[in-house]
Amino acid sequence: MITSLNNQTIKEISLLLKKGKERKKQDIFVAEGIRMFTEIPKKQMVKAFVSESFLKMKEDRVLDGIDYEVVSDSIFKEISDTKTPQGILALVKQFHYTIEEILEKKPAHLLLLEDIQDPGNLGSILRAGEGAGITGVIMSKGTVDIYNPKVVRATMGAIYRVPFVYVEELEKVIRQIRRDGAVYAAYLDGAIDYDAINYEGNIGILIGNEGNGLKKETVRLADACIRIPMEGKVESLNAGTAAAILMYEVYRQRRKK
Amino acid sequence: MITSLNNQTIKEISLLLKKGKERKKQDIFVAEGIRMFTEIPKKQMVKAFVSESFLKMKEDRVLDGIDYEVVSDSIFKEISDTKTPQGILALVKQFHYTIEEILEKKPAHLLLLEDIQDPGNLGSILRAGEGAGITGVIMSKGTVDIYNPKVVRATMGAIYRVPFVYVEELEKVIRQIRRDGAVYAAYLDGAIDYDAINYEGNIGILIGNEGNGLKKETVRLADACIRIPMEGKVESLNAGTAAAILMYEVYRQRRKK
Repeated sequence: MITSLNNQTIKEISLLLKKGKERKKQDIFVAEGIRMFTEIPKKQMVKAFVSESFLKMKEDRVLDGIDYEVVSDSIFKEISDTKTPQGILALVKQFHYTIEEILEKKPAHLLLLEDIQDPGNLGSILRAGEGAGITGVIMSKGTVDIYNPKVVRATMGAIYRVPFVYVEELEKVIRQIRRDGAVYAAYLDGAIDYDAINYEGNIGILIGNEGNGLKKETVRLADACIRIPMEGKVESLNAGTAAAILMYEVYRQRRKK
Repeated sequence: MITSLNNQTIKEISLLLKKGKERKKQDIFVAEGIRMFTEIPKKQMVKAFVSESFLKMKEDRVLDGIDYEVVSDSIFKEISDTKTPQGILALVKQFHYTIEEILEKKPAHLLLLEDIQDPGNLGSILRAGEGAGITGVIMSKGTVDIYNPKVVRATMGAIYRVPFVYVEELEKVIRQIRRDGAVYAAYLDGAIDYDAINYEGNIGILIGNEGNGLKKETVRLADACIRIPMEGKVESLNAGTAAAILMYEVYRQRRKK
């Protein structure tokens, strides 16, 4: 059992939680909590760490066939990213989808994120996106790291199943999608109500940064700008909320077909 | 200028930020940030506090006709609920809507929240709710305090405009709405897809607690249980996301009419 903060493994986990660079270098991320743990795809699992108390709770059947190490409760608190740790976490291999794989699935229902910063937003976009049946998420390199522990947790497991990729620039992907589909930019000054569009073909939806929205250069690359109508004095919706409303409109239309 | 943490006013603001009981006793809440500040309805304004730096920034026209006090930058940090304070906050009178007022508006588009716990969720529900043109929010007494600074901030000003009320029990209100309308419970095992319902009449939508959903007793009081269909292995959506999708479906149908 690991009982010291000076243990090399503990130091490494702390680093993996804090530093995106370290996660990238090691090609690994940390998934915490029993639910996130049980949904890890087998071939992605690297190693599990459980607290002393967790082992006693007889939940240990979830550890069948998995390489794990026990950590004292007090040390587990230190490597946990939550206030009330459930006592189980795992190191998980990062995913490596290619842009080609992601664009292959038809009819495409893609989300293109430009510089989304809030981990909770990105996580909940993946979660709602899986629900709405999106075929992938394409992110600008300025988007928050999807392996940030707060993003991972907020996905509620969708990170294991929704294909995603970071790209140097969105421009090229937008052009690729437009070859046999359409790209719509969610834009506060958009000319067309989001629900006036037919989304049954291949589509991509562009969502911009929380504070600044989409860059003008990016907006220009889209087929059309769509807006979510708003009553009252609301100036905008939260980026995660807006994305969910748009994805579910696409899904609604496709289900009705 | 206030320069000491021991100043009585500073102590009181700290208390108001932390304690719902204190807010209730004084019938006041704290709104922070320039945007939240400028949207405060005039008759609700009690007093403003600005940092030294804020005064120097020439944004001080927003203070015209308002009773304000200057606080040193370091003290302002202590009474701020954010990491990078904008240097302006105000004490604001609480709102006192009656259930009768809220039920009066027709066609009703009401949100009934049972024990929502996450401040961010409640805030973003109000924000998206204002956008979707809801006529009010009715909350069980177990719902997080709407005057919690995190809720206030997440509403992005909607707290000033969307009528809301806490009730001892939702049962009575549900029966009142059902007299000339329908109440739908958002329920994972719901029998009807949310978008198969006609929402043009008076309606209320019940949203349950983040972890446990709606209580069975509450679900039984509704006209029908509605579900948001989900692809993949997603078990549920975030309560705020689910609420936004439902409210925007109601709004979509009403706009199409």
